[in-house]
This record gives sequence, structure tokens and C-alpha cells, in this order.
Amino acid sequence: MTLLNVTDISSAACCAPLEREPLGADEAVALANTMKALADPTRLRLLSIVAASADGEACVCDLIEPVGLSQPTVSHHLKILTNAGFLTRSKRGTWAYYRLVPGALGRVGDVLGA
Amino acid sequence: MTLLNVTDISSAACCAPLEREPLGADEAVALANTMKALADPTRLRLLSIVAASADGEACVCDLIEPVGLSQPTVSHHLKILTNAGFLTRSKRGTWAYYRLVPGALGRVGDVLGA
Repeated sequence: MTLLNVTDISSAACCAPLEREPLGADEAVALANTMKALADPTRLRLLSIVAASADGEACVCDLIEPVGLSQPTVSHHLKILTNAGFLTRSKRGTWAYYRLVPGALGRVGDVLGA
Repeated sequence: MTLLNVTDISSAACCAPLEREPLGADEAVALANTMKALADPTRLRLLSIVAASADGEACVCDLIEPVGLSQPTVSHHLKILTNAGFLTRSKRGTWAYYRLVPGALGRVGDVLGA
């Protein structure tokens, strides 16, 4: 069994569950970076608060109190989640509003073999 | 909507997808710790190599070459994965053998809402 044939593995990369075949080195780095965005309690709570919001959207002004951190800190975490592809951001007036990117969390779950 | 009622949320904690209701603080810490175990390219590759092994089991001696790291480093990563509940370890003769804990990755995927 060839474990490190990155070329072959990459061609089937997008949807191969982690359990089905060995991850190539490049895939592993990309997936680990995605996991790092999720590997923080504040970011997980922010994601779940945004997702559970009535209209699927939350103003940064409504996220500060629930997590008990300053606005710059909350905005920093939201930026990491946005850069990792989990949230979209739109600015309206004074505030930024965040929405979950549909399917983004599910795709990570799929890779894990859920 | 009460976002921080940890008592209520904990009672439904085990299987509530991240998108369904806001995570409580304690749940978020536990899930982030699990994610941290997965947020490393070497550990992701080790997991997938073990999982894709012919009989679902891999000797640490067979994991060193594919990831290109020293045995102590590989053993360190395997210990983190074992402590996080993703692998079981059994010692036979000179070597330790690792297996994926059935369903452990899938449960993380389920929480993400896969």
C-alpha cells in the first residue's frame, strides 16, 4: 500500500472521509487548519449562537454579551471563522452581521466520516 | 432566548448539533479540546492511516515511515489521539498497536451538524 502518493489522493480529496483512505500531506495541512479555526471554545460558541439565531444572522453587537468578551476580541474570533470559510460577514450601518456558510460545518463532519 | 443556561443545554449535550442551539460554556471547552486533538496535520494523517489499515489496526512501527517523523514524536501524537478518545492502544511484544475507536470521529462529525 502506498501511503504517500499525494497526487493520487488529491484527485479524490474533496469528499473522502478520513477513515476511507490515508490523507495526503497537503490535505492534512488544509484540514488541520480548518480544525484549528474550530478548536477554540469561544469560536465554537460564536458559531452556534450565530447558527441558532432566529433568522440565521447575528449582529456582532449581540455576540459580545453572551461570550463575555470585549468587542475587539469577539471580532478577532469572527474574522478567523470568516477566513476559514464558516461565516460570511456583511456590514450594514454601524454593525457587521454574520451568517453561517451553508454546509461548511457539514463538510468538515463529512470528512470525519459522520 | 437564554444563551448561557448551561444546565439546560448540558442535559441535551451529547448529540445536539452545533447548529441547533447555542453551546454552553462547558460543552464548548470539551468540544474545543477534542478539536485540538484533530487540529494537527500529523495526527490527522496518523488517524487516517490507522483507519485505512487492512485490518483496522496499525503498529506504531508501521506509522513512522509514512509520516517521516521520529518514533518518540509519532508516539507523542498517538498518545494525544488516544487520550482524546480516538484511538485504543494495545501492547503486544515489543510494539504498541492502535485501532480507531468505532464511532469516535463520527460523533464529532454529528456535533458539527453533518
